Amino acid sequence: MEEITEQTATASNANWYELDTEEKRLYFFSLTGEDQQAFFRNLSTTEQFDLIIELTDEARVGWVRQLRLNDAADLIQKFPEALREKTLALLDNRTRRELVGLLAFAEDRAGGLMNPRYIRIRPEMTVGEAARYLSSQARGNVEIVYYAYVIAQDQRLVGVLSFRDLILAEQDAVIADTMRHEVVSVHEEMDREEVLSLFSKYNYLALPVIDAEGRMKGIVTHDDLAEVAQQEATEDILKLGGMEALDEPYLKVSFFEMIKKRGGWLTVLFFGEMFTASAMAFFEKEIERAVVLALFIPLIISSGGNSGSQASTLIIRSLALKEVRLRDWWRVLTRELMTGLILGTFLGLVGLLRIVIWQHWHPIYGEHYWLVGLTVAVSLIGVVVWGTISGAMLPFFLRKLGFDPASASAPFVATLVDVTGLIIYFTVANFLLQGTLL
Amino acid sequence: MEEITEQTATASNANWYELDTEEKRLYFFSLTGEDQQAFFRNLSTTEQFDLIIELTDEARVGWVRQLRLNDAADLIQKFPEALREKTLALLDNRTRRELVGLLAFAEDRAGGLMNPRYIRIRPEMTVGEAARYLSSQARGNVEIVYYAYVIAQDQRLVGVLSFRDLILAEQDAVIADTMRHEVVSVHEEMDREEVLSLFSKYNYLALPVIDAEGRMKGIVTHDDLAEVAQQEATEDILKLGGMEALDEPYLKVSFFEMIKKRGGWLTVLFFGEMFTASAMAFFEKEIERAVVLALFIPLIISSGGNSGSQASTLIIRSLALKEVRLRDWWRVLTRELMTGLILGTFLGLVGLLRIVIWQHWHPIYGEHYWLVGLTVAVSLIGVVVWGTISGAMLPFFLRKLGFDPASASAPFVATLVDVTGLIIYFTVANFLLQGTLL
Repeated sequence: MEEITEQTATASNANWYELDTEEKRLYFFSLTGEDQQAFFRNLSTTEQFDLIIELTDEARVGWVRQLRLNDAADLIQKFPEALREKTLALLDNRTRRELVGLLAFAEDRAGGLMNPRYIRIRPEMTVGEAARYLSSQARGNVEIVYYAYVIAQDQRLVGVLSFRDLILAEQDAVIADTMRHEVVSVHEEMDREEVLSLFSKYNYLALPVIDAEGRMKGIVTHDDLAEVAQQEATEDILKLGGMEALDEPYLKVSFFEMIKKRGGWLTVLFFGEMFTASAMAFFEKEIERAVVLALFIPLIISSGGNSGSQASTLIIRSLALKEVRLRDWWRVLTRELMTGLILGTFLGLVGLLRIVIWQHWHPIYGEHYWLVGLTVAVSLIGVVVWGTISGAMLPFFLRKLGFDPASASAPFVATLVDVTGLIIYFTVANFLLQGTLL
Repeated sequence: MEEITEQTATASNANWYELDTEEKRLYFFSLTGEDQQAFFRNLSTTEQFDLIIELTDEARVGWVRQLRLNDAADLIQKFPEALREKTLALLDNRTRRELVGLLAFAEDRAGGLMNPRYIRIRPEMTVGEAARYLSSQARGNVEIVYYAYVIAQDQRLVGVLSFRDLILAEQDAVIADTMRHEVVSVHEEMDREEVLSLFSKYNYLALPVIDAEGRMKGIVTHDDLAEVAQQEATEDILKLGGMEALDEPYLKVSFFEMIKKRGGWLTVLFFGEMFTASAMAFFEKEIERAVVLALFIPLIISSGGNSGSQASTLIIRSLALKEVRLRDWWRVLTRELMTGLILGTFLGLVGLLRIVIWQHWHPIYGEHYWLVGLTVAVSLIGVVVWGTISGAMLPFFLRKLGFDPASASAPFVATLVDVTGLIIYFTVANFLLQGTLL
């Protein structure tokens, strides 16, 4: 129940997120004892850093000691080099050794997420002995416990028991006969995204981390993964918005870091969009002869972009949830073709009506306004069908090539569809307006 | 460890998601005994429905019995009315009563997520008695157990103990003295989004659900919430892509349902985009005099849209993560103003270079190409600054008005910025090209 008391402490201050750094500090140092400690443990690493960075060395180390080892490692990772050394030097030998071990792992590997402290028991113990031994271990500074891991003489993980198993088993049964033999475990070098997908697919509470020899190194728990899940979601969402994820919260990240992350994609998109200028130059004669055609360019290309970004977002999400598989591309294509035809026809009709009705009040579209309206309507059908299809197929294409489908962001699809939209529009115009306006 | 065995069963068939419905059925019925049951419990409600809907009544009820009560309720909810009655009639009285109770709750309330079976103990028991009683309850058909809830005579929830607490406590201590008194609980009518944010903020494993009188009704567990979390994420992501969330997976949802969900926003955006035609009509004279201006219209408005969608996505996510608060709007505004200026100036320079260099190879921009280039460059600065600022401010504005900031989707921002982008472009052109091209 350790969790629940901690959470009560935080929940009582619902407005925490509305405070700025200075107010947070004031509030934090107004707390005392257990309340303050529980509160501290529940903060994000960045918030913890802000609160303790200006304290004396001793006070700072005291707060580091409050944390579970993997959280402590995350926090120390944020310290400037000199401070990191000083902090480690002030800790006891065992903790320092374990922390240095954790700092060696890249943050994006299972090893970087794990806690080296967990409940270990021997296969030859009885259930009763294990329960007593466990109760002595659990009182100490170990990770919140869900499972006891059965470790053989050679440090290999051979089985696992939950606290529930221990309560339900006969007191004099031998652990080796009571334990579960099939243990799902993760390798210490496993990518954190893979670990995350294991956790979110099966709702594990904790998984053991093993090395290449099958020796147990630590555990990864569901609450550590919750943070990873949030970071991954942020990355995906920002990708959909056409930019790279920032490494820090918006108001914390350095200004030039942010410019870099946004400028990169923006420039790529800009170069893509330059082809519209070339396409337009190609149709300059048509525009000169019938300026009225220029009026509908933004309307037409943006309709393609909007329908394309709907389709790509939908397919990206369906692929991520595995509701749609790579080999479904043909079914998706036919479905999107129909969708594009219906949506395009509808928008085309609205566009036609708009031109014809408008003409009655402000006769600006000339005597051939019906033909202009028809050109816009037919182009809208073509552009929406094309936008929908390319938006839907692009994520498949990217996945097939081994890229992340989420790169088919709304801005990316819109840029792709703009150039082709112009070509569709002027081709339709050349066909329908030949001999009248063109 | 119930979970772990189940998960091993599923994990062994990594290609499950690549199978179609018929193949899934074949694979499923090739399994037997515990394997098959564990496998079934791990499927989504839709998958379970597909597998059992065509079985005989008795076989179908047998599978419903395999599920935890809240999962069974979700599944039965999917049945056609007649089948629902028939299935309930075949169940034992207690299960039927509990299921009917669950079916009464709307799916989006805590009550609709909860399981009415949980471990309950009395405050006057000793720890030893509780452990024995609990072991008898836990062997039965109760929800996977993390906590034992202490219920008074009047059914009110008075405390809670974890299995760990029970193992660590003295055997003859009284529960009332050992239990935690502060219990975080949720009200049965609490919105599921609120329940979700409680779980994801504090990593609870399970929370008790109580009614208005403080009587305990059931528990909500973290794995039930995982599904809710995924649905909410899908809703947000599709909103960012400019459409409403579908109620079923892409390949399952009815075609006209999908057209409706996509057509709605698409039409709204189309009406918004119609203003570009009006804006263009307003500048028709300028285009007639200098057709060269028309060539850069798509480039300029899309740059505004792209920078705007980056800014809005970033701010939407930061607001969701509470990294940015409503009252930070001024800091965000100044930051985005600087960002827009730098990114706009960079794109402007690239655009200017593009025109000047191109002119050397294909002299299509006329004798005043330097002025044209300057017009494009200055417009790009203006449009990118404007796009960035409006993209960043729109989510604040929506939140302030009580709407979901995520409605500031890329297509929405792009549409908004297109109209104003045209006005900026032609205003700059009128200013810089007066007396030469205009």
